[in-house]
Amino acid sequence: MELAAKACPFLRNSTPSALRTLSQRPAKTAMASNGLVHMAQQCPVMGKAMTIQARSAMMTSSCPASAGARFFSVSATKLKPEKSHVLGYATPVSTNDIKASVQHELHKANPAPGAACPFKPATTTATPVSHTAPTAGQPFDYEAVYEAELQKKHQDKSYRFFNNINRLAQQFPRAHTAKLEDEVTVWCSNDYLGMSKHPVVVETMKATLSKYGAGAGGTRNIAGNGALHLELEQELAMLHHKPAALVFSSCYVANDATLSTLAQKLPNCVILSDAMNHASMIQGIKHSGAKKMIFRHNDTAHLEELLQSLDPSIPKIIAFETVYSMSGTIGKVDEICRLAKKYGAITFLDEVHAVGMYGPHGAGVAEHLDFAENFHRPQDSPVKTVMDQVDIISGTLGKAYGVVGGYIAGSAAMVDMIRSYAPGFIFTTSLPPAIVAGASASIRYLRNSLSERIGQQTNTRTLKAQLAALDIPVVPNPSHIVPVLVGNAEVCKAASDELLRSHGIYVQSINYPTVPRGEERLRITPTPGHTEEMMDHLVRSLESVWQRNGLKRTSEWKATGGRAGVVEGAVEPTPIWTDEQLSLSAEATGARKVIAGELLMDFHMRQQTSAAQL
Amino acid sequence: MELAAKACPFLRNSTPSALRTLSQRPAKTAMASNGLVHMAQQCPVMGKAMTIQARSAMMTSSCPASAGARFFSVSATKLKPEKSHVLGYATPVSTNDIKASVQHELHKANPAPGAACPFKPATTTATPVSHTAPTAGQPFDYEAVYEAELQKKHQDKSYRFFNNINRLAQQFPRAHTAKLEDEVTVWCSNDYLGMSKHPVVVETMKATLSKYGAGAGGTRNIAGNGALHLELEQELAMLHHKPAALVFSSCYVANDATLSTLAQKLPNCVILSDAMNHASMIQGIKHSGAKKMIFRHNDTAHLEELLQSLDPSIPKIIAFETVYSMSGTIGKVDEICRLAKKYGAITFLDEVHAVGMYGPHGAGVAEHLDFAENFHRPQDSPVKTVMDQVDIISGTLGKAYGVVGGYIAGSAAMVDMIRSYAPGFIFTTSLPPAIVAGASASIRYLRNSLSERIGQQTNTRTLKAQLAALDIPVVPNPSHIVPVLVGNAEVCKAASDELLRSHGIYVQSINYPTVPRGEERLRITPTPGHTEEMMDHLVRSLESVWQRNGLKRTSEWKATGGRAGVVEGAVEPTPIWTDEQLSLSAEATGARKVIAGELLMDFHMRQQTSAAQL
Repeated sequence: MELAAKACPFLRNSTPSALRTLSQRPAKTAMASNGLVHMAQQCPVMGKAMTIQARSAMMTSSCPASAGARFFSVSATKLKPEKSHVLGYATPVSTNDIKASVQHELHKANPAPGAACPFKPATTTATPVSHTAPTAGQPFDYEAVYEAELQKKHQDKSYRFFNNINRLAQQFPRAHTAKLEDEVTVWCSNDYLGMSKHPVVVETMKATLSKYGAGAGGTRNIAGNGALHLELEQELAMLHHKPAALVFSSCYVANDATLSTLAQKLPNCVILSDAMNHASMIQGIKHSGAKKMIFRHNDTAHLEELLQSLDPSIPKIIAFETVYSMSGTIGKVDEICRLAKKYGAITFLDEVHAVGMYGPHGAGVAEHLDFAENFHRPQDSPVKTVMDQVDIISGTLGKAYGVVGGYIAGSAAMVDMIRSYAPGFIFTTSLPPAIVAGASASIRYLRNSLSERIGQQTNTRTLKAQLAALDIPVVPNPSHIVPVLVGNAEVCKAASDELLRSHGIYVQSINYPTVPRGEERLRITPTPGHTEEMMDHLVRSLESVWQRNGLKRTSEWKATGGRAGVVEGAVEPTPIWTDEQLSLSAEATGARKVIAGELLMDFHMRQQTSAAQL
Repeated sequence: MELAAKACPFLRNSTPSALRTLSQRPAKTAMASNGLVHMAQQCPVMGKAMTIQARSAMMTSSCPASAGARFFSVSATKLKPEKSHVLGYATPVSTNDIKASVQHELHKANPAPGAACPFKPATTTATPVSHTAPTAGQPFDYEAVYEAELQKKHQDKSYRFFNNINRLAQQFPRAHTAKLEDEVTVWCSNDYLGMSKHPVVVETMKATLSKYGAGAGGTRNIAGNGALHLELEQELAMLHHKPAALVFSSCYVANDATLSTLAQKLPNCVILSDAMNHASMIQGIKHSGAKKMIFRHNDTAHLEELLQSLDPSIPKIIAFETVYSMSGTIGKVDEICRLAKKYGAITFLDEVHAVGMYGPHGAGVAEHLDFAENFHRPQDSPVKTVMDQVDIISGTLGKAYGVVGGYIAGSAAMVDMIRSYAPGFIFTTSLPPAIVAGASASIRYLRNSLSERIGQQTNTRTLKAQLAALDIPVVPNPSHIVPVLVGNAEVCKAASDELLRSHGIYVQSINYPTVPRGEERLRITPTPGHTEEMMDHLVRSLESVWQRNGLKRTSEWKATGGRAGVVEGAVEPTPIWTDEQLSLSAEATGARKVIAGELLMDFHMRQQTSAAQL
């Protein structure tokens, strides 16, 4: 279809970069979404076709002209701008070959051979046909659906451009972008404690790679189950004081597989789900086919109302989280457990953003709630704490623990049932030995070291205080998440881009569907590795972005009714890490650091033993 | 509940190991499943309780006596036998503490405080209540359901005991079991080519760990997208000659997420699924909610019948595999693509067991079918092969490539749509940098080296020939899988155990639900790393196990009607790797080996550059 490009003088004479620039330039009229569309509207051939297409009001039309129009608005965005060194989009289409892409699109626009101009109105007179109602007998146009679905994402500004961020272990929390020499400070990673670069983790993984190789080589049932997998599961069970634990590819899979299998096995099960639960739980619930009741976020009165409405004898699962990742709010573990007991339900608690981060041993918020009781509690202690009231805890090895993978912990029979029935556990290659060994090392280390947790919480408090002083709106919460409210998808992305390009700071914009529309935010996650200078620079940069773009301040949000918790009269929640707990640092973490040092020594000794065994 | 154990003289005087031994000893009567149950039946208290329980015919009863009986038949198997050095079950219950477990079970059996003897018949007179029909007002007994579901698995012999296998990178294909000194030869791993221990993979991963740390630290959208992820996706797209590729946590997730999202986005979509498709595809199809039609395994006439029955204008996905993992049969790629074209369907092809293994560059069976054309085909070649007819290819990084993770490859818009909509892709921590770097290195290496593939196929042929000569039944197939038919779940497990314990050979038994009942098998996977001596030992050991246990021979299967392809008149399929292709080794792999050598050099150079950059 080279003919097509040759026939159009505009395409023939435009360089790929000119087309790209045009597509990125704002349009001069409200009728066009960008400069390239505006230009197309001026074309006597294409313009006419686009008018017809606009009239048809069928955005997803399979009409060739519409396809052409879609090209101008969609495909340009799919091409990596050569000059941007941070935009890293996954499509391996050559960035140098926009013309080839044009031709490909034109090919679709006008498959009839020999037609000289694809924009010729004659070819657009066919009635536009929605892909949802294909003409009988005509084969279905799959690509049109894909394009239309992408178009929707572009239209509502929820289309995601992945930034190319390469976090440098030796310079944590710094990362290089697409160019090695362009470094930025990462302020939005879930590697909350920097464990991904901790020598205990990295060296354990390297030693394990040398000894046991890269991959597990099979499912847990077929050649993929080793001592390291069993050790990790023991470690996790001990961490949560539960009889058993089970490791999955990810906590997404853990939540999905466990909830769906569990609710399928419990006859007539009803799942009561917090309105702000993570996608993985929502999927698990959906996949179970069980009846679902959603209770308002953290509203235990509503939860009780729903529980009361149900037959006491039927099985019920209350699914909720401790730290809600995008708002930083914290689930009411003790109250929900009390309700569960009262109404004969079991609790499924996602501690994904809390494990490693809360509690004297990093077991999460449930452990943290009885901090003192759990601090010196032996494994076989008869003392019962809130954590013991939770039936099933799910967690990740990929955030505070710095590696990858997910797990559940609970009763031996429950875990064994999931192990025996969940397809998402059974039919997949198990995690590599080095991954599970690294995760075990990380858990063991954080069980014995409080200093990372305290450092992280201290930095969180400092940042929140500094932003409050500047009237920059932070969604109030008692946890380690610092969600800075922007409230508009485009503006939020622009602010994120500006921070990256002009200030060397990487904070991803969080847009719909991860947060509701109008609640778009910059989600900042301080780590103990962020220095005072880095924090000063972040705060000054945010102030600059807020000023330069006239972004809404806390006081303005409150004056206009507020949003996402940034509302008049909102009481700042007491941080879950109390002053007293933070002041433990001098003493307790000192004492603990010795243990951490011993762990390191122990690790090096084991490494030598491993080496000797090779 | 120490009282319980004290009250029972048998429990009081028995050591944990004695209980364990008893539970492993065959029973003297047909009434008991093992020696421990037999012993319990002799007990004047427990025996009576068990009789009542047996009469109730409610195997899933929540009656305390039944729970006690379940302990003897179930829980004993859940405890790791101290002396067995290979059984590695995931429950972290201490192996030394069988008494504690007994007490735990007794606790459940008789929760009333102060009751001296838990076996007292009086406590069993309560009407047994099925968990599926709980008494109104009574809280639901969750643990009873878990236990009952496990009991089902034990009863139909599909309960899985994970062997503790630790594959040693430096002694591939050897592994140690729970004890370091007990080594075995692994004959059932999916690390088909031994890439998990290849220096290119292992050293790349170590260098990446040093530079970029352990975990990715976020989702692909938030801090978890780096140059290495993009590079891997480009590598995969190039491998399959597709415009784009997308990487997932595993191919289970890739199949599930892609099929479910795709079929949800295509209005009124119908999925035509091969009867022997993998669980991950079945789940994906189920989760999509789309209409599903199953065609008989590899039966293209049946497929066409189904296609003919459908409106030509509605979207249709034909989902199938190339190498079916448990039978080794191969999907009819060209014929199915032809049908797809004819009936306006798209094809979704799972090449999980074929990538790295087939084709001149390891792109899979679709590439292999045009071996000569693809051998020297440049990326931008206009030549179209069968591989180009496939719309979506899914593959794994965890089998022949030796690492972990999964992917899809296909059109740019399709991949971008899945990237933009699939929760299983979006809401999960991305694969660690070291994992994606290791996978890229493995793919690059196998693109350029034929010798591993040829070595693997040659060993497969030799093994199949040797087993045929001994009349040991192998399910006939043209691929690299050597499924040895046993046909009975217990016998199959026993054969696997005997190979492990008496011969130092690990071949997992494959039972229901992975294969149909009556088609249980030992699935052997030769690698290029298995030596002639290892193969001789395997064949001699199999012959010994077959003789000792009187297992059915090929001729016997055929005489009695046959099963799973081992039937009278079955024509041995021509191996997909032809003699001619295997004979390429001398020349082509020699030439290719140079390239592999260069890759290694190139890798070491890049490693030095990385080191310099640190």
